[in-house]
Amino acid sequence: MAKVGIVMGSDSDMPIMKKAADVLEQLGVEFEMTIISAHREPDVFFEYAKSAEEKGFKVIIAGAGMAAHLPGMCAAIFPMPVIGIPMHTTSLGGRDSLYSIVQMPSGIPVATVAINGGVNAGLLAAKILATSDPELLARLKAYSEDLKNQVEKKDARLKEVGYKNY
Amino acid sequence: MAKVGIVMGSDSDMPIMKKAADVLEQLGVEFEMTIISAHREPDVFFEYAKSAEEKGFKVIIAGAGMAAHLPGMCAAIFPMPVIGIPMHTTSLGGRDSLYSIVQMPSGIPVATVAINGGVNAGLLAAKILATSDPELLARLKAYSEDLKNQVEKKDARLKEVGYKNY
Amino acid sequence: MAKVGIVMGSDSDMPIMKKAADVLEQLGVEFEMTIISAHREPDVFFEYAKSAEEKGFKVIIAGAGMAAHLPGMCAAIFPMPVIGIPMHTTSLGGRDSLYSIVQMPSGIPVATVAINGGVNAGLLAAKILATSDPELLARLKAYSEDLKNQVEKKDARLKEVGYKNY
Amino acid sequence: MAKVGIVMGSDSDMPIMKKAADVLEQLGVEFEMTIISAHREPDVFFEYAKSAEEKGFKVIIAGAGMAAHLPGMCAAIFPMPVIGIPMHTTSLGGRDSLYSIVQMPSGIPVATVAINGGVNAGLLAAKILATSDPELLARLKAYSEDLKNQVEKKDARLKEVGYKNY
Amino acid sequence: MAKVGIVMGSDSDMPIMKKAADVLEQLGVEFEMTIISAHREPDVFFEYAKSAEEKGFKVIIAGAGMAAHLPGMCAAIFPMPVIGIPMHTTSLGGRDSLYSIVQMPSGIPVATVAINGGVNAGLLAAKILATSDPELLARLKAYSEDLKNQVEKKDARLKEVGYKNY
Amino acid sequence: MAKVGIVMGSDSDMPIMKKAADVLEQLGVEFEMTIISAHREPDVFFEYAKSAEEKGFKVIIAGAGMAAHLPGMCAAIFPMPVIGIPMHTTSLGGRDSLYSIVQMPSGIPVATVAINGGVNAGLLAAKILATSDPELLARLKAYSEDLKNQVEKKDARLKEVGYKNY
Amino acid sequence: MAKVGIVMGSDSDMPIMKKAADVLEQLGVEFEMTIISAHREPDVFFEYAKSAEEKGFKVIIAGAGMAAHLPGMCAAIFPMPVIGIPMHTTSLGGRDSLYSIVQMPSGIPVATVAINGGVNAGLLAAKILATSDPELLARLKAYSEDLKNQVEKKDARLKEVGYKNY
Amino acid sequence: MAKVGIVMGSDSDMPIMKKAADVLEQLGVEFEMTIISAHREPDVFFEYAKSAEEKGFKVIIAGAGMAAHLPGMCAAIFPMPVIGIPMHTTSLGGRDSLYSIVQMPSGIPVATVAINGGVNAGLLAAKILATSDPELLARLKAYSEDLKNQVEKKDARLKEVGYKNY
Repeated sequence: MAKVGIVMGSDSDMPIMKKAADVLEQLGVEFEMTIISAHREPDVFFEYAKSAEEKGFKVIIAGAGMAAHLPGMCAAIFPMPVIGIPMHTTSLGGRDSLYSIVQMPSGIPVATVAINGGVNAGLLAAKILATSDPELLARLKAYSEDLKNQVEKKDARLKEVGYKNY
Repeated sequence: MAKVGIVMGSDSDMPIMKKAADVLEQLGVEFEMTIISAHREPDVFFEYAKSAEEKGFKVIIAGAGMAAHLPGMCAAIFPMPVIGIPMHTTSLGGRDSLYSIVQMPSGIPVATVAINGGVNAGLLAAKILATSDPELLARLKAYSEDLKNQVEKKDARLKEVGYKNY
Repeated sequence: MAKVGIVMGSDSDMPIMKKAADVLEQLGVEFEMTIISAHREPDVFFEYAKSAEEKGFKVIIAGAGMAAHLPGMCAAIFPMPVIGIPMHTTSLGGRDSLYSIVQMPSGIPVATVAINGGVNAGLLAAKILATSDPELLARLKAYSEDLKNQVEKKDARLKEVGYKNY
Repeated sequence: MAKVGIVMGSDSDMPIMKKAADVLEQLGVEFEMTIISAHREPDVFFEYAKSAEEKGFKVIIAGAGMAAHLPGMCAAIFPMPVIGIPMHTTSLGGRDSLYSIVQMPSGIPVATVAINGGVNAGLLAAKILATSDPELLARLKAYSEDLKNQVEKKDARLKEVGYKNY
Repeated sequence: MAKVGIVMGSDSDMPIMKKAADVLEQLGVEFEMTIISAHREPDVFFEYAKSAEEKGFKVIIAGAGMAAHLPGMCAAIFPMPVIGIPMHTTSLGGRDSLYSIVQMPSGIPVATVAINGGVNAGLLAAKILATSDPELLARLKAYSEDLKNQVEKKDARLKEVGYKNY
Repeated sequence: MAKVGIVMGSDSDMPIMKKAADVLEQLGVEFEMTIISAHREPDVFFEYAKSAEEKGFKVIIAGAGMAAHLPGMCAAIFPMPVIGIPMHTTSLGGRDSLYSIVQMPSGIPVATVAINGGVNAGLLAAKILATSDPELLARLKAYSEDLKNQVEKKDARLKEVGYKNY
Repeated sequence: MAKVGIVMGSDSDMPIMKKAADVLEQLGVEFEMTIISAHREPDVFFEYAKSAEEKGFKVIIAGAGMAAHLPGMCAAIFPMPVIGIPMHTTSLGGRDSLYSIVQMPSGIPVATVAINGGVNAGLLAAKILATSDPELLARLKAYSEDLKNQVEKKDARLKEVGYKNY
Repeated sequence: MAKVGIVMGSDSDMPIMKKAADVLEQLGVEFEMTIISAHREPDVFFEYAKSAEEKGFKVIIAGAGMAAHLPGMCAAIFPMPVIGIPMHTTSLGGRDSLYSIVQMPSGIPVATVAINGGVNAGLLAAKILATSDPELLARLKAYSEDLKNQVEKKDARLKEVGYKNY
């Protein structure tokens, strides 16, 4: 049973949304990925959002750019956490996406991550599920340990070769 | 039969939305004003937007602040013009509202006016209707003539009393 | 008889303005496209804007970049709706164009669409005309249906091939 | 046993943080509120963040303004979700707080809510816990229902008294 | 014969425009002040701008706020220097006015001063005229000397009373 | 005798500054171009600015990027008009240059043109000199007429070939 | 012998500059405070900056607003560290001051603190001097300890009275 | 014994951090460069920052991008000056890094240089050490003299070949 719904308004968002999916896969979290547009097919979207709970979703990750309404409209319907990923945009650098997602009115929160923050959206979904899943929490800790090791290796290499040869 | 639907997500937007209503009344355009939240009552909102055409609406004026989804979601459902009014906001001065309304993706335009531009939203709705209503067009021209006269009077007074006494 | 005037201040805006024209053509709306600069040939511009109504224009689409005065000056003279397209700019990403177009003073609205929003400007013009043209409204609904189908196809393909092969 | 840690860097953030606490109390979620500064007492902060898991925290809500490091540093240490509230600031309107909280690097997500979004932070924490607590989920749904009713009452009053008397 | 035309689109700009007039008066430069709106009375405006040269204007100072077109439209018609004053605005702090005035396309410069920079607009007009008027140049030098003296007096007072009593 | 001083802080600004020089040459205005850094050689700069008047300069065009102090420091010393060109910058798009040049305190105006506005700086300098030089004014009018003709030719070509072949 | 020069371009900056002075006094660091304008009295300013080293200054703290040139011009002349305080401004919130101070070109650094960051400027000056003054370093550590204690007291009070009574 | 610690959160910051190292080397200042992440290895970071004083560091240069916490967290622990370099970022141009570094709360200053200002960070560190090291001060003066000579050579070449051949 899928635990996380990943939804994007356009397949141009796929390169960022894939990162969320990859992290979830790596952490052993089931997910279902969907392309759906709240603007172009509002009926389909409504049906999706309303049935998300009974499909077993505990978290929805929604990515969108420009006047990004998809995460907020998910949050208006789905009763559990919605994570929003603001997409980078050419003209405004993603500020439009960011403001459209994070500045939600009182009562309908969207858990917003960084512009193009696909990896962090996946991690945040996993952390949410880990509040009641000790094994997932352990895998998340291992993931963090791995990040730490990568930095330590880089520093060791710097110390070894010197900054001019790095 | 109402021609213009005026809709706002919160009654805190009323002081701005009233200006749109006042202009429409002054120009003899029928309208219906509604408080409805796409976020807090998505079902009610959907019903409203879907039935707007059969209620006789030709234009919808939607005002919203922050992550302002109401105008864009109206435009996703209602097939005729939607005018968006971005509300001023304390922290971001209304940039959040503006970007959330004007930066709509291809296919779903929202005719956006200035931040807090209630009067202009009403005028734009009237201009839209005036494309097929010569009498309304005549009233709009008289409205513009009146604006012109007000400026001329101010200039005349300046010329008379001098800038130090203005 | 042309219904929509499309005007741009510089032929460098053509790639965006063409999109508006293409949509109008696709929807069967007559239009006339003109290059005219309110700054470089104010007399020619004034004559254009003043004669627009008698040429049968019901809507003007005006695109401009930087200190974009063309849409606002059209709106100062032409009594029916003016749609403004803010052009993307290298240094400010189109914020200069957007603010110069959307922040119109009370009394002279410009219906502003997204930065580089050529398609949406064309659609908005058609929606305005559709308020009194049921056949055009039907074509607009079909256009929207087509957009919806495109998204559904993409989602079907995603479901079929999986996100890794998308 | 407390489920949610609420932490702020300065007691000047209290008016916003109280809103998160009030929502949690209303929803029956236990929490512990602390004033702690990652900048002024890094040792105390480290101890706090490291012991948060064993104290039973499942979520931390951290509010901070300006160069807001508290939420991100909590997320660097605490393995479960951290919610960040960017505080409004006089000079930059909270953009500094927002960017310092939401633009986290890959690997360390902070679930960011709106500037001054205390209520939404509390709700988001509850939604996170509700992914494994059906009773809390039911209370959240009732909370949403209540929000919906409030809007409907306002609209009913508008319909009754008219916009001029609203 | 007036040398400087001072023009504003709205009498709400008067407090700033007065400062330009006061400086010119102090420096013995003749000027004529006018309230005229390029948006609300384009014909009147065109007549004004076209006749400015024959009225003897050598410089025009134009102040405007929001989508501030007045300075740019003056520069499109009047062949000598146009100085633009961007007015402070509530929502965008005058960024809208500034961008609408300073970001002029190639060929039509507007000499832009600071947001609400009425004094500097007056001084700049005087400096322009001083390029061919040695007596005015002498008065400008005296004006600068006076500014210098004011700062020196403040520093002397600081040295005398100490910063705690300043 | 040179009438216009053109000064830049770094030869990386040359591509923009050249445009100002080219316009002046085209209009028959003598100028002298200098590379001088107010930051790296303040003594040299001071000497330059102080001797500018006696060298016969009537206007200084100063270009600078980032924390652009050169135009403002010229204006602090040279008593006649200083025109500032804000250079585009990679990180902030030239906002830093623009604010550092246009937001001058009361008493020391800098006539600011658009970001990278080299042509307009040259034209503005010529317009300033034209306030006392009828022949230069005539050349400026011819220059404007030429700009107008260029636009008209483009429109004629559009009308001839149609927008699809433009 | 004064170790720190505190300089401001206008006495309107005094409320912020006083905070720097107060911190230095509290830490036992000698300073000299001066009002001097690089724009209004460039000769006086140059003399000040050139003689700063021989007066014994090791650090200069310079505060300025809008197109804030004072810190950068100090750094162009004085060979030791210059600390810049960007002043809050009404229209741009201090972004103009911040960019004008922090975005210095390569070769002439200004150590920039937060907008209106008078206290931090004083502390930073003391920290710079403390690199060669162990007693001052000890006083700085005590100062930090005191900040820590203040936060701990607030947290203790919160724990005692509860957040509702705080 | 190293005098300056250079620390970065990611080796992607190396091209900028190298510039700081190169300047220090050129000026004969010893330094130690480290890759350490406050977010990914908070324990390692804490140990680093706490031991920095006893390692003999007098200054720390910390570079970071996005929600850049590294400089501020160094400043929370290390008692002497911390210099922050905000990294350029794709979406927000480095504004996020800049605000996260410069907008530090009262009590914990970070000496912030320009976005990507690696050279200036190195110079500022040297200037700080030069407050108690006359020989280093002399080398810094020679460095500045060299910068001056470079500009003078460029101007001489411009004078020789003319701007068209430059």
